[in-house]
Amino acid sequence: MKKYLITISIALAATSLSATGAMPLYKDASAPVQQRVDDLLSRMTLQEKIDQLQNRASGKLEDIDKIFAGRSFGTTHEMSMPAFDCAVMYRALQTYMKTNTRLGIPVLTSAEGIEGILQNGCTIFPHALAQGSTFNPSLVRQMTRAAGEEARAIGIHQILSPVLDIARELRWGRVEETYGEDPYLIARMGEAFIEGYQEYDITCMPKHFVAHGTPAGGLNCAGVSGGERELRSLYLYPFEKVIRSTAPMAVMTCYSAYDGVPVTGSYYYMTELLRGELGFDGYVYSDWGSVERLHTFHRAAATREEAAKMALEAGVDLNIDSSYETLEKMVADGRLDEKYIDRAVRRILTVKFRLGLFDAPYGDPEQVKKVVRSKEKIALSKAIADESAILLENKNGILPLDITRYKSIAVIGPNADQTVMGDYSWTTSDTDEGITLLQGLKNVVGDRVAINYAQGCDWWSRDKSKIAEAVEVARRSDIAIVAIGTRSTYLGRSPRYSTSGEGFDLSSLELPGEQLTLLKEIKKTGKPLIVVFIAGKPLAMPWVKENADALLVQWYAGEQQGNTLADILTGKVNPSGKVNVSFPRSTGNTPCFYNHYVTDREEPFDQPGTPDEPKGHYIFDKPDPLWNFGYGLSYTTFRYTGCVLSDTLLTADGILKVKVTVENTGKRDGKEVVQLYVRDKISTVATPVQQLKAFDKISVEAGGTKTVELTLPLSELALYNTRMQKVVEPGEFEIQVGSASDQIHFVRTIIVR
Amino acid sequence: MKKYLITISIALAATSLSATGAMPLYKDASAPVQQRVDDLLSRMTLQEKIDQLQNRASGKLEDIDKIFAGRSFGTTHEMSMPAFDCAVMYRALQTYMKTNTRLGIPVLTSAEGIEGILQNGCTIFPHALAQGSTFNPSLVRQMTRAAGEEARAIGIHQILSPVLDIARELRWGRVEETYGEDPYLIARMGEAFIEGYQEYDITCMPKHFVAHGTPAGGLNCAGVSGGERELRSLYLYPFEKVIRSTAPMAVMTCYSAYDGVPVTGSYYYMTELLRGELGFDGYVYSDWGSVERLHTFHRAAATREEAAKMALEAGVDLNIDSSYETLEKMVADGRLDEKYIDRAVRRILTVKFRLGLFDAPYGDPEQVKKVVRSKEKIALSKAIADESAILLENKNGILPLDITRYKSIAVIGPNADQTVMGDYSWTTSDTDEGITLLQGLKNVVGDRVAINYAQGCDWWSRDKSKIAEAVEVARRSDIAIVAIGTRSTYLGRSPRYSTSGEGFDLSSLELPGEQLTLLKEIKKTGKPLIVVFIAGKPLAMPWVKENADALLVQWYAGEQQGNTLADILTGKVNPSGKVNVSFPRSTGNTPCFYNHYVTDREEPFDQPGTPDEPKGHYIFDKPDPLWNFGYGLSYTTFRYTGCVLSDTLLTADGILKVKVTVENTGKRDGKEVVQLYVRDKISTVATPVQQLKAFDKISVEAGGTKTVELTLPLSELALYNTRMQKVVEPGEFEIQVGSASDQIHFVRTIIVR
Repeated sequence: MKKYLITISIALAATSLSATGAMPLYKDASAPVQQRVDDLLSRMTLQEKIDQLQNRASGKLEDIDKIFAGRSFGTTHEMSMPAFDCAVMYRALQTYMKTNTRLGIPVLTSAEGIEGILQNGCTIFPHALAQGSTFNPSLVRQMTRAAGEEARAIGIHQILSPVLDIARELRWGRVEETYGEDPYLIARMGEAFIEGYQEYDITCMPKHFVAHGTPAGGLNCAGVSGGERELRSLYLYPFEKVIRSTAPMAVMTCYSAYDGVPVTGSYYYMTELLRGELGFDGYVYSDWGSVERLHTFHRAAATREEAAKMALEAGVDLNIDSSYETLEKMVADGRLDEKYIDRAVRRILTVKFRLGLFDAPYGDPEQVKKVVRSKEKIALSKAIADESAILLENKNGILPLDITRYKSIAVIGPNADQTVMGDYSWTTSDTDEGITLLQGLKNVVGDRVAINYAQGCDWWSRDKSKIAEAVEVARRSDIAIVAIGTRSTYLGRSPRYSTSGEGFDLSSLELPGEQLTLLKEIKKTGKPLIVVFIAGKPLAMPWVKENADALLVQWYAGEQQGNTLADILTGKVNPSGKVNVSFPRSTGNTPCFYNHYVTDREEPFDQPGTPDEPKGHYIFDKPDPLWNFGYGLSYTTFRYTGCVLSDTLLTADGILKVKVTVENTGKRDGKEVVQLYVRDKISTVATPVQQLKAFDKISVEAGGTKTVELTLPLSELALYNTRMQKVVEPGEFEIQVGSASDQIHFVRTIIVR
Repeated sequence: MKKYLITISIALAATSLSATGAMPLYKDASAPVQQRVDDLLSRMTLQEKIDQLQNRASGKLEDIDKIFAGRSFGTTHEMSMPAFDCAVMYRALQTYMKTNTRLGIPVLTSAEGIEGILQNGCTIFPHALAQGSTFNPSLVRQMTRAAGEEARAIGIHQILSPVLDIARELRWGRVEETYGEDPYLIARMGEAFIEGYQEYDITCMPKHFVAHGTPAGGLNCAGVSGGERELRSLYLYPFEKVIRSTAPMAVMTCYSAYDGVPVTGSYYYMTELLRGELGFDGYVYSDWGSVERLHTFHRAAATREEAAKMALEAGVDLNIDSSYETLEKMVADGRLDEKYIDRAVRRILTVKFRLGLFDAPYGDPEQVKKVVRSKEKIALSKAIADESAILLENKNGILPLDITRYKSIAVIGPNADQTVMGDYSWTTSDTDEGITLLQGLKNVVGDRVAINYAQGCDWWSRDKSKIAEAVEVARRSDIAIVAIGTRSTYLGRSPRYSTSGEGFDLSSLELPGEQLTLLKEIKKTGKPLIVVFIAGKPLAMPWVKENADALLVQWYAGEQQGNTLADILTGKVNPSGKVNVSFPRSTGNTPCFYNHYVTDREEPFDQPGTPDEPKGHYIFDKPDPLWNFGYGLSYTTFRYTGCVLSDTLLTADGILKVKVTVENTGKRDGKEVVQLYVRDKISTVATPVQQLKAFDKISVEAGGTKTVELTLPLSELALYNTRMQKVVEPGEFEIQVGSASDQIHFVRTIIVR
């Protein structure tokens, strides 16, 4: 479901300031926030309160319409408005709010900001999945600091991200919006994301609370099966971490139900868990339409009114689907206690005061010109893209390409001359913004090598008519680079032909359309085959694993995506991304996430089988992924030469330090992600065979050695026991250190008393 | 994991009867059971008690060995022993127990009995999945009455079935052992199954308690994700129904964990839920090895001893994996309170007394000769097979075949001259027992039509070498019948080449091996193509739906399977089976069970899409099944002409009666399954869009009309609310009456106050 960029709409309320001589307390910037909130609340009419719950400006409709130059904001987005114009508009809007409305309550201006600010002209950074594969939270923090500077200049105070959903259901279209399959990685990235924006006093909104990422059948918004233990140990983990460490002022609800309970309408989720257990103290924002959908979708409320009452009482404070319009009448009828409205208004006003909106709500159009999409920000976007790409295969070291050896390169495939930005990017067309692989390669090789391009096929259709041309192009070239994958477009663009993104779920994880046919035909030419997989999720590519000479993965990597690919293919950049969502062998070999329970990969019943003599699990295949979490190649090689634990006998409140020494044994400088996993050797309830609990991305010069220290608070070893108590059970734990979840170089045992 | 047929083994305990003059109370058949139990328990040594917990005979090893003629019973099964010999052996064994052991405690003789008694020579009935597709509990009751007569004659007192697992995860190999995907159908079949055996004082053992049927990834024994609400509304439903209505004396545990808790080691599941909430008062039997596996598989217990203690204290009374050997030492060490042992022994002895084992434990070898595999029983097996086959496609009424029109019929395919009995059948070879399709057809057509046979391909391999011969056979025939599907063999036979059954899970639901290639090649001959799908689970067969002239499904249908198929294909029998597990469109279009939540099939986000313009869910396909629950064709047609409700305004404790009139509008007598589904129109927690709550299978003569009355206790409309209370929420409910879940002829609304 699409969110609106500007979630304000207009009510008909009265204007004019209080006519008393003295300044009202709430306008006193030096007064404590709670006093200002109390004072303001006491002055508000019921309608004004309800306006707050809908992020409505209590001003004159026609005035505000004028500010927006006739655009129907509130029912459509404004992302196509240039950033400068938007800053001017917001300044006018906030000025109007301050001076022309009765109480002068500012608007809480929001934007999508998952891969940079969703406003025309802002820097487009790599998408969340690509941020995740960098395994570099520091880069994410730099990214949101940069995006935050842009947002601040425009006058945007709130970002409707990060997504803390867990990518275990690969058919789901929104995998691209996640940081991956691991709750610890997600938490680290979510924290960094929020911290960067916070440097510009911009608040973020972790979403979708909670357990939204594993819908039945991979169908968006479908129910999620799961119990309390799975909820706490898996789905709540990143939310709890992020809320405790960054104290975001808002959390967004989700569309789904967990174990049959529609989460948005649940006091247990919205209040008891979120506030009581996780310590959240901001306000709750409804995912667009999620309140109304308690009636229309879940059929949990008999009417729109009941849906509104259910959500408000549960603890959903701000709701932009207009069903809160019904609240006033329900209070009048005695069906709703106004205290619920006051509670919500209080939370929203508190955030507005804390963000300083009453005192300095404006952006600065002149600043926009300076900071938006500056050279440094574009370079940062490229730097993140550089670290996000994952090299999965590189047979006989064919990459990096020695372009002095080739006279011609075929560049083929639906994603060869096509940027893919993913959902929630402001881009206005398929082709205008960003650098494609083809353009990037031309930028790098210039006139030195002939580049022969053919599309070959599209992303989705069964049209094979262009394959012959692509084969011909490959035949007359020395080497073939084929860029395949998925397509996903920004929310405002036609979703035609998308194969990923919100609302675009796949029933098959095979390459859509004729992409595999294209690869097979190119392979037949006998030319070296470099596959570039540009996608928003892993697909099942056993043929590629077996047949491609190299495989380079790029999740949607922002406006510089083509330059990054060209730099990696030609060796200017050494790849360092790691798999953050494991690649399945087939649609049916799922789920294949690395952090499964021990029982979920039983030893073969009899003995390992073959197709001729099937035995064990599965009878024709293995459940393991093709490329596992944490895996990714470099143009250099690393050797893990030392692993020293600070202690092996600890208590549950202790902290373990692990020193790991890594040697760059190759001939190039490179970056390595040192990964620490834990395993509870005996646990009364199921625990994963591996859980990432620390990592560090380091640069090591060719021939050099570096030692990193990883820190593990032993509280991270906790489980939820049969009485749902969070405890560290005394006993032995494995500390696994390696360069991937399936490349563990050291296994040590610690004992926790 | 395989269960042993005879789960007795030998301990070294003392012999000789009590030497007092008076008969001990426990031997007095007229004394109340509890007094007999108390008296016996008071006389037992700790070792004798522990023998009981392991179903061991406390006798001399060498004596008992002699009875078994040197067979290592207790560590292997005896299913290959002819029924008569087995009866003789059991008589000797029980006589020995009674007369040669210190306390004379009889053995609780058990057998697998899911499709008839697992003893050489007993009648082989259709497997559970085929019983389910009859939608005729009366037939199942007749079946277990017949099997019970055989068991009683042999001296078997306990059956290790029925399976009440729910078939929602189609990759799982054990789908064939279930009654299907619907909890109500499962409950009805489970009740009938138990009632039939009970007529011969044989007790049954519902399994696998609980939620075993939805393992992660479809991998046998893997963890099951789910919450308390799903547990209660779905997985517990058939157990609760069956326990309350039939009071089985035993329940079998499961291998899996639910929400991370290994069920076999859990007091909550084994005692609080099972006894406290479901009212079970028999004894709990561990699925083979499930106690030991708390240590070796779940890693929930640090040692075998701890696993034994965990299970015993949780409430697992009888355990045959030998880990209860450790109990004696734990009592001696003070690590285990003997009261847990006494509790378990008491439960087991109670069952032995209630079954009359102390008084009349013997079977009757002479009776075996009369009753085992009698003509009537074989006819019953055929009658069940006849009602179990499901006709899914019949284009242009090609079936029944008019054999006067054909000179030659090609009979092709891996399952054409092969009986498939499924797991837990005693059959000793692939070919000796039962009637294959080929044999059945020859039986029917005699010399009138030439039957040309070719295998074409096998079930599993990539060997295409025999396809050409099959094509040739089709070419020179008037019509081609191609029998494809899965293979599953009895537990004692080599599992080579099985594609279904326990431990044989599939990562793909496509037809294994080259079966689809075979079908396509036969289709190319232009001959009419009749597909017979003989399998233990639905597979994804969109090609068959589109291309076959007819599709007849037979779940493993017992020893008469080929005769049934021949009679249906040639029209002697009119098919009346209905889909009990919905058929998926593809591996990724799962789960596709009919009773999903409303949110699990969201209306398309935008509009329905096409591959060229994908929109909505999924972008290239629909989530709905190819053939839905309840569906199945007949050679006649039915029209639903009336539907009268006894009331439309009821209270939650009321009972609704629905009268439905059905007319046979065709030219043949036929059987129809009238189905009643309910839907809660508004519910605070998610409820299925349809739930089967009543059905009746009726025979209607050609041109005739019949009225059936279906009964719906409104307590069946209950849900588990957010406080996990079981309540019927007042409001509107839909009553849907039809001939399939997707062929609803009447929709009525009732109001529950």
